[in-house]
Amino acid sequence: MADKRKLRGATAREAILSAAVDAASVEGLEGLTIGRLSQKVGMSKSGLFAHFGSKQELQLAAIECARAIFLEKVVAPSEAQPEGLPRLYAMESSWIDYVQDSTFSGGCFFAAASAEFDGRPGPIRERIASLTQYWRELLETEAARARELGHLDQETDPALLAFQLHAFLQEANWAYQLLGDRMAFEQARAATQGLLRRFATPEGIRKTKERKVVAARAVVA
Amino acid sequence: MADKRKLRGATAREAILSAAVDAASVEGLEGLTIGRLSQKVGMSKSGLFAHFGSKQELQLAAIECARAIFLEKVVAPSEAQPEGLPRLYAMESSWIDYVQDSTFSGGCFFAAASAEFDGRPGPIRERIASLTQYWRELLETEAARARELGHLDQETDPALLAFQLHAFLQEANWAYQLLGDRMAFEQARAATQGLLRRFATPEGIRKTKERKVVAARAVVA
Repeated sequence: MADKRKLRGATAREAILSAAVDAASVEGLEGLTIGRLSQKVGMSKSGLFAHFGSKQELQLAAIECARAIFLEKVVAPSEAQPEGLPRLYAMESSWIDYVQDSTFSGGCFFAAASAEFDGRPGPIRERIASLTQYWRELLETEAARARELGHLDQETDPALLAFQLHAFLQEANWAYQLLGDRMAFEQARAATQGLLRRFATPEGIRKTKERKVVAARAVVA
Repeated sequence: MADKRKLRGATAREAILSAAVDAASVEGLEGLTIGRLSQKVGMSKSGLFAHFGSKQELQLAAIECARAIFLEKVVAPSEAQPEGLPRLYAMESSWIDYVQDSTFSGGCFFAAASAEFDGRPGPIRERIASLTQYWRELLETEAARARELGHLDQETDPALLAFQLHAFLQEANWAYQLLGDRMAFEQARAATQGLLRRFATPEGIRKTKERKVVAARAVVA
């Protein structure tokens, strides 16, 4: 009986968080009030309050939920690829797919949360900064590994490459969210291919072509 | 007497708007309440209300003020350069300088406003979209002109080039605002140079080197 109640609680929590992440991608994490969210999930305010004691607790839990989705949709598929250029390419492709497929109504959750909290110090900003920083570092580390494996020219600057890959996705998300410009995703893909081709060695291109890239829309570099 | 009063009114209006733009770059346009702003500029709420009848009117006026600053700091200096690659390069360089010099406390006003309003239809969103779209088109038009003048290879895709230039600045603004990463501005400059060098013709490089680029920190492409 107690177990069942615990299970029901866990499922309710998941439903609340999934609605919270989606709402926050559109209206921001600050717009996430327990009152409005309770309407969305059809639960009483006190019922919702039992799951999250405060607005900040709810916001932090929503961030962890968005992180789990990102790990599942972007990080995991790329980790199935061989390290070096194939993996770096898969990381960027799955990321573009994930934002283009509009996992959340308001586009990239972290882009929205970054802009909202960059001027508001505190635990929310810190968590957003540390997670986005972690992803940037993953891109840079993989670029460095690709250079080490001879998939990218020795002159490649991994940090500068990661900067550009990160920029292309954020730009596409921005252009689609503000201007409704869906072409921007194709531009992000074209820019990625142009950039990677510029630094890839024949060995790097061969290794990347060898593997079927997992992401649905990906074109082989 | 009436003229003097009008002049005082115009100056007060400017002071209010300049504070409004700065506050909005940090806390967002929605955080811009007449109450908080009146504290900032040391004016009564009713005095401030005499200038702007509603919050939305104040928000729209703040956008026009930010636009005027952008025209002065970014567009005007680049228009002093010869058209084609020198001007395109100056547009990007002045833009990076302008954001790096932190004209507004919260960085790029339009980046902050874009993220805040992309999910909120209405006149504010429309104005932000139309102004940022206009700037993107200016970059694209100048890239097309540079190709026409033989400053860029004939294979250059002006829209794709503009996409990337726009992406580098927005990425630097994002990284600096959220992560405090000042290196990101240098990365935006390096990425810009790498991209333009890749498509520039010897003629385009010569023309760009010939002119002293107006922007303070700009390194000649």
